[in-house]
Amino acid sequence: MTSLTKILPLKYPIIQAGMVYVSGGKLAAAAAEAGILGVIGAGSMNLELLEYHIKKAISLTSHPERLAINVPLLYAKNRDQFELAIKLGIRIFITSAGHPKLYTSWLKEQGCTVLHVISGPELALKCQEAGVDIIIAEGFEAGGHNGRDEITTMVLIPLVVDAVKIPVVAAGGIADGRGIAAALALGAQGVQIGTRFVATLESSAHDHFKNAVLNAHSNSTMLMMKKYVPVRLLKNKFYEDVKKLEDSGASSEELIKLLGHGRAKAGMLEGDMTEGEIEMGQVAALVKDNLSTKELVERLVLETRHSIQELHSAF
Amino acid sequence: MTSLTKILPLKYPIIQAGMVYVSGGKLAAAAAEAGILGVIGAGSMNLELLEYHIKKAISLTSHPERLAINVPLLYAKNRDQFELAIKLGIRIFITSAGHPKLYTSWLKEQGCTVLHVISGPELALKCQEAGVDIIIAEGFEAGGHNGRDEITTMVLIPLVVDAVKIPVVAAGGIADGRGIAAALALGAQGVQIGTRFVATLESSAHDHFKNAVLNAHSNSTMLMMKKYVPVRLLKNKFYEDVKKLEDSGASSEELIKLLGHGRAKAGMLEGDMTEGEIEMGQVAALVKDNLSTKELVERLVLETRHSIQELHSAF
Repeated sequence: MTSLTKILPLKYPIIQAGMVYVSGGKLAAAAAEAGILGVIGAGSMNLELLEYHIKKAISLTSHPERLAINVPLLYAKNRDQFELAIKLGIRIFITSAGHPKLYTSWLKEQGCTVLHVISGPELALKCQEAGVDIIIAEGFEAGGHNGRDEITTMVLIPLVVDAVKIPVVAAGGIADGRGIAAALALGAQGVQIGTRFVATLESSAHDHFKNAVLNAHSNSTMLMMKKYVPVRLLKNKFYEDVKKLEDSGASSEELIKLLGHGRAKAGMLEGDMTEGEIEMGQVAALVKDNLSTKELVERLVLETRHSIQELHSAF
Repeated sequence: MTSLTKILPLKYPIIQAGMVYVSGGKLAAAAAEAGILGVIGAGSMNLELLEYHIKKAISLTSHPERLAINVPLLYAKNRDQFELAIKLGIRIFITSAGHPKLYTSWLKEQGCTVLHVISGPELALKCQEAGVDIIIAEGFEAGGHNGRDEITTMVLIPLVVDAVKIPVVAAGGIADGRGIAAALALGAQGVQIGTRFVATLESSAHDHFKNAVLNAHSNSTMLMMKKYVPVRLLKNKFYEDVKKLEDSGASSEELIKLLGHGRAKAGMLEGDMTEGEIEMGQVAALVKDNLSTKELVERLVLETRHSIQELHSAF
């Protein structure tokens, strides 16, 4: 329907975002089955765990060609992650948090399709020059790691679309068909949706985390840790501790010390809603039910068509 | 075309935002002539100046019924501003920065239409209960004064639309037809556009300010002064001074002392790009030409229709 569904073997131009501790093989397989890109978030996985999730995903879907791996380019193990995934049959990769030049040529030589995540337009041309097939442009409202320039999806998408010829996927602030229609109106060829998929039957988020998404209000999240790595998180006790430090003018080192180790796992996978780090997008405020990925995707498609119909008669 | 153009006597569901030192009688009249709501920003005006601009606007347009006044509910003079404007024939008011209950009933008794600006969904129901006719919901990316919860337009509009039955106008991050189409897709019945109108022939912004809009990049603005009144401004020397204070953990009092008096006038009207406060939305990065309000509105309408057509064939 869009250039995204021409490049990727999808029924709908929708990507289920790779999310640490949330999108394992089960969610990715359900997404692929439902006609969208199912993404395993490899950021938190060692090689054994990644192999387990890829094999699980492949075993659970009749559309393994719709599976992808999200790889933050932060670790020495990155090359091993790519090689393992390729060996197991994965041909679509989403890279993030690093320079698009690092692995794109090599991945293309292996016959893979490469999507790269950016949070500002500066890297857009570099993605195109590096041979990236599709750009995912993620706005300030998105959950988890984020850019320093705080550019929102409304502004970011037209800027990136104007900067490059390759297709652009919009991410950040999208949880229903209105958001999808809006993203397409801004010039995106598809959307990546994260937080909405936390509250699905197949997500591996802890129930406490799912409930936090379902109960979130518009002011339940905030972009923090700007002196270190900006991340949008739920306003819980851990957030309060970070805020206190930041308000007092604390340094990056003090923030890293407070963050410590294992906070994200404790929060999102193990359900520690007090001391854990819970990554969540602003759009959680629009998420009201926990349902199967299949039902969710069907609803998103119907809602998008409805929004576009309404729009057509409005102007 | 939308419920906005049924309530207000407009050709297109577009509001030219009231902006201090930018939208006087000349810009408001040009906007009204072009078929949209022309708004005089009264925030910076004493009564004499407000009278001058209202009379000027009325003398310059054949559609005085499309003129409105934006009144931040911050001052003792507010009641006098309303009475003066009503005496001169104005019947549309945009109130902001205060509680919608303050003047709405009284304004409705005078036969006026009331629009109220909010930055989060909490006040939406209160607007409806107070008798407000139309809500303007303004996202984090907007220039000038902003909300504390940093809710972006993509997330804010669906939340407010779901919360009330009265029409919602989207503001923040909109400078072209893609943005207008996106806002309508999100459920808005119209848009308010600010920064784009700074760079028009009829705006009273200093040329240095206009040029700063034309030359802005995606990272040229930032939301600052969060411990006092959050405001999105151009990253100039004044911004650097604010940032230094904020990074060191400065108090609200220290920020107020740095802000001093007359910074906004010095910057936006008098062109002091070093020590002045220049209010600007993120979307300045999409503004590339200084043109007449008439040309701009015609282009916006064509672009919006084009975006909606494209969308219709995409999904």
